[in-house]
Amino acid sequence: MKKTGEKVSVAVIRRLPRYYRQLSELRQQGVVRVSSGTLGKEMGLTASQIRQDLFCFGGFGQQGYGYNVEKLREEIGGILGINRGNTAVILGVGNLGHALIQNFKFGNNGFSVTAAFDVDDSIVGTKIGAIPVYHADELEEYLRTYRVDVGVLTVPRAFAVEMAQKLADGGVKGIWNFANVELRLDKPDVIVENVHFSDSLLALSYMIGVPCHDEETNDDE
Amino acid sequence: MKKTGEKVSVAVIRRLPRYYRQLSELRQQGVVRVSSGTLGKEMGLTASQIRQDLFCFGGFGQQGYGYNVEKLREEIGGILGINRGNTAVILGVGNLGHALIQNFKFGNNGFSVTAAFDVDDSIVGTKIGAIPVYHADELEEYLRTYRVDVGVLTVPRAFAVEMAQKLADGGVKGIWNFANVELRLDKPDVIVENVHFSDSLLALSYMIGVPCHDEETNDDE
Repeated sequence: MKKTGEKVSVAVIRRLPRYYRQLSELRQQGVVRVSSGTLGKEMGLTASQIRQDLFCFGGFGQQGYGYNVEKLREEIGGILGINRGNTAVILGVGNLGHALIQNFKFGNNGFSVTAAFDVDDSIVGTKIGAIPVYHADELEEYLRTYRVDVGVLTVPRAFAVEMAQKLADGGVKGIWNFANVELRLDKPDVIVENVHFSDSLLALSYMIGVPCHDEETNDDE
Repeated sequence: MKKTGEKVSVAVIRRLPRYYRQLSELRQQGVVRVSSGTLGKEMGLTASQIRQDLFCFGGFGQQGYGYNVEKLREEIGGILGINRGNTAVILGVGNLGHALIQNFKFGNNGFSVTAAFDVDDSIVGTKIGAIPVYHADELEEYLRTYRVDVGVLTVPRAFAVEMAQKLADGGVKGIWNFANVELRLDKPDVIVENVHFSDSLLALSYMIGVPCHDEETNDDE
């Protein structure tokens, strides 16, 4: 296992969830064992890149024998923190907040959502599924009372910076930022993960405009 | 300019929207000229990586003088297809479809949304903003009548494959897939861009669990 504090490149970190997703799919299909070549083909990576990535976290594979799907999935899940019992709160229960609460499987990613916050009187005090919706004014008190690992920021842009600062001041470790605003917090230990839909759409825009872009050229992704 | 058909790595394609976003921000801040070093610092990339990426598309920079923000932004926007007049339709006007229509700036990314489709009688026949909502049964006819470049797939999982196939059969060039279902279409020329929220959340989960992961190590992202 990689020692804590050793450097892992951002690119490897970004690939880990993809491995986890791919292995989860293989497991669902009943696949017991997979070679780095097959895994790479599914993911658009070379076999040697995969061996290198996984070696980075302590190996797992056996030469000429491939990887045990279930075991590798569990190991990577563990590295990703799936079993850490992470908690999250949702800030902003508009369309996107609603969509995440109702359709996104937080549990599959090791998160339980414990509360949501909004300012709209028509939903404050209600529940969405099992999740209570509190008034945004109650956030600070909530964060003093409960351990919250991640704040999910789905508020309108105008409120994003203020709410993010409250999350950071309240001691969350990370902010999952859908507000499309650059957050510069005065707490450098709070990790901000920005979701930029436009990066994805523009990549698609590029690809539909290039007749023969090469999907295999994943050399340095 | 890169010749059509030459190979551009997926990693470079993925970085182009980030350049575009960064340059748009600099432009908004009134910055006229930026060095590859400064641009790199903002983006967590090395200056040499940036020079290499942009050289890939024909240069733009001048040694020791930096890049003209406005001009580079326009060039990259052009490469990404911002000025191509792309059109899109939204399939599925649930919470996520709604959120995209109401909050995502398709126009900033060179797309105009011309129609939305759903099966829910309470919204079919209405408009969301300026966008008419038609019944999903009308999709094929619509695609025969109008040019649609991209279908945005925000339907529930159960309908995703069927609707994606209709989009592909109807001649779209790309599918922006939020349905969290692997689409294997029988039209290999249709580009599918999958949006996996879980990849983003799991990367965040990893980062909040590692006390001193190194954000600077972007060596091969």
